[in-house]
Amino acid sequence: MSETRPIALDAMGGDHAPHEIVAGAVHAVRERGLQVVLVGSPRVLYEALTDHDATKEVPIVRAEEALAMDEGALASLRRPRSSIAVACHLVRRGDAGAIVSAGSTAGIVATGRLRLKAQQGVLRPAIAVALPTRPKPTLLLDAGANAEAKPEMLVQFAHLGAAYAELAYDIEDPRVGLLTIGSEAEKGNKLVKRAYELLQGSPGLQFAGNVEGHDLLTGKVDVITTDGFTGNVALKTMEGTVRYAFTELREAISGSRPARLGAFMQRSRIRELRRRLDAEAYGGAVLLGLNGTVVIAHGSSKAQGISAACQLAADLSAEGIVARIGDRIAATGRSHRLW
Amino acid sequence: MSETRPIALDAMGGDHAPHEIVAGAVHAVRERGLQVVLVGSPRVLYEALTDHDATKEVPIVRAEEALAMDEGALASLRRPRSSIAVACHLVRRGDAGAIVSAGSTAGIVATGRLRLKAQQGVLRPAIAVALPTRPKPTLLLDAGANAEAKPEMLVQFAHLGAAYAELAYDIEDPRVGLLTIGSEAEKGNKLVKRAYELLQGSPGLQFAGNVEGHDLLTGKVDVITTDGFTGNVALKTMEGTVRYAFTELREAISGSRPARLGAFMQRSRIRELRRRLDAEAYGGAVLLGLNGTVVIAHGSSKAQGISAACQLAADLSAEGIVARIGDRIAATGRSHRLW
Repeated sequence: MSETRPIALDAMGGDHAPHEIVAGAVHAVRERGLQVVLVGSPRVLYEALTDHDATKEVPIVRAEEALAMDEGALASLRRPRSSIAVACHLVRRGDAGAIVSAGSTAGIVATGRLRLKAQQGVLRPAIAVALPTRPKPTLLLDAGANAEAKPEMLVQFAHLGAAYAELAYDIEDPRVGLLTIGSEAEKGNKLVKRAYELLQGSPGLQFAGNVEGHDLLTGKVDVITTDGFTGNVALKTMEGTVRYAFTELREAISGSRPARLGAFMQRSRIRELRRRLDAEAYGGAVLLGLNGTVVIAHGSSKAQGISAACQLAADLSAEGIVARIGDRIAATGRSHRLW
Repeated sequence: MSETRPIALDAMGGDHAPHEIVAGAVHAVRERGLQVVLVGSPRVLYEALTDHDATKEVPIVRAEEALAMDEGALASLRRPRSSIAVACHLVRRGDAGAIVSAGSTAGIVATGRLRLKAQQGVLRPAIAVALPTRPKPTLLLDAGANAEAKPEMLVQFAHLGAAYAELAYDIEDPRVGLLTIGSEAEKGNKLVKRAYELLQGSPGLQFAGNVEGHDLLTGKVDVITTDGFTGNVALKTMEGTVRYAFTELREAISGSRPARLGAFMQRSRIRELRRRLDAEAYGGAVLLGLNGTVVIAHGSSKAQGISAACQLAADLSAEGIVARIGDRIAATGRSHRLW
């Protein structure tokens, strides 16, 4: 039963590893009732757990190596005993249901592809990011796992995202948009023009046509499919623009005396809003399409973020996201013979 | 002397054509001392000029057709007598120094390519957009003229942008960044990896390496080169994110009573800031690389925006942007034989 398998939590990845990761594990176990296994250096982790008086609540699995935050895909392949590699091993063996890591995205993707392998029929795994639209998030994928993509991959990313939207956010028959540079069918580069044709005929998909950059945060569709290059540029552009807008805002409201007063009163709300936008822009990134789900927490995650990522991983695992994706891809393959 | 040639202003393009366009022309002539020729339906334009008592100050050149805002590239090619086509003709004949249009971008690009032709050695014209960084803008190009690009084009876009930065913003030896998905040289898709190599060896260019989406608004570089697909997605993502951030902000500051009071005091400043960000995100879009400069004003431009666009067109024309680009491209071609 996937429901009862613990989350394998990479304790060595992230800017605040291992202490905030361990604190997140303890929070997930005590406050959320989740099962979590910490993967990393036993000595270090045991000490950290001792600080929380939690050595009996959170088991440790040994991994003596860790990927540095700036280590990329190649380095990760050279480290079969890294914490993320060991976490993958736990999932393959059936000892864990899903993985959470705040480590280097490139390292997680490379290790995951090598050690978990793509699901049958899946051409490439993709990173799905939940954008902070309302009432439900819009899922953008691929947010950076693949710098190059083929039209058939964009169709699969749509299905990966649709499965995620259904299971994690209870969205029935998710609307899927194709990110391009104009709303008409013929707009875009060769990749998206061909993807448009394929998406129109893909079974089990409510294809809503093209969307543009300004539609990312309007909630116009539930899933937006794009190649990992465009998706990553768009995601980081959003992040940078939010920062820019708030910096400009701070200057605008500190310019006059009554405005300063107003700013004082609103400071905490604005700070709260900014934090929400910053966190949510990257929150809930999930690597989909492998034989096992990997939740990629933001590198700067602290205990609360890690705990929330464990909840997302547990939910996706319990809902059977891998099986749901498998069904969708199989249905697509049967009617279209895309590969 | 290019300095004395008037601006050919497409009076029929834009959401508020022809009245706001005509008002912009009158403003440019009276307040800025520019020479402007209105291109469009003489009867309509004469009437509009009469309202400003300006029939003797602004000449009219007849063009009986106009491109609708939703007409794209193909339609524009079928209309040799459209206002934008006639404006191009004036520049080719030497009767105008540059063009301003608030019409359909796709139509302007297609008509400009057909009727003005690319400058010698220029593979493709590109749209440059000035992003609202400080103290000087960062120029992003291509913002959407070419959905597909080759590595050599990205090098040329860098030179087009550098010439624009030098002439319009007095930036000496502009720093050029390549938009991709990681700061290391090997990050990105095939297009940008090859462009990176070519940019490193391009004469007269201060190549500062890769930049990412979150660098677009930080002023880290003066010119950012990218293909028109990625550039357009990034630009529209910025626009959408600014709108989103301000909508969220409005909700955040109207939630509590003291906050409402603060909001009241700050309302005008916030509105002012939002307007600036919205306008500047698209303001100053210029189609570069043709035998003649075309300033693409925002479709929703009113008189002030049109007048400012005429000023930009006059400045670029007077400074000899076409010749400057020609020099740069010639120098690149001699040392590298890219084509």
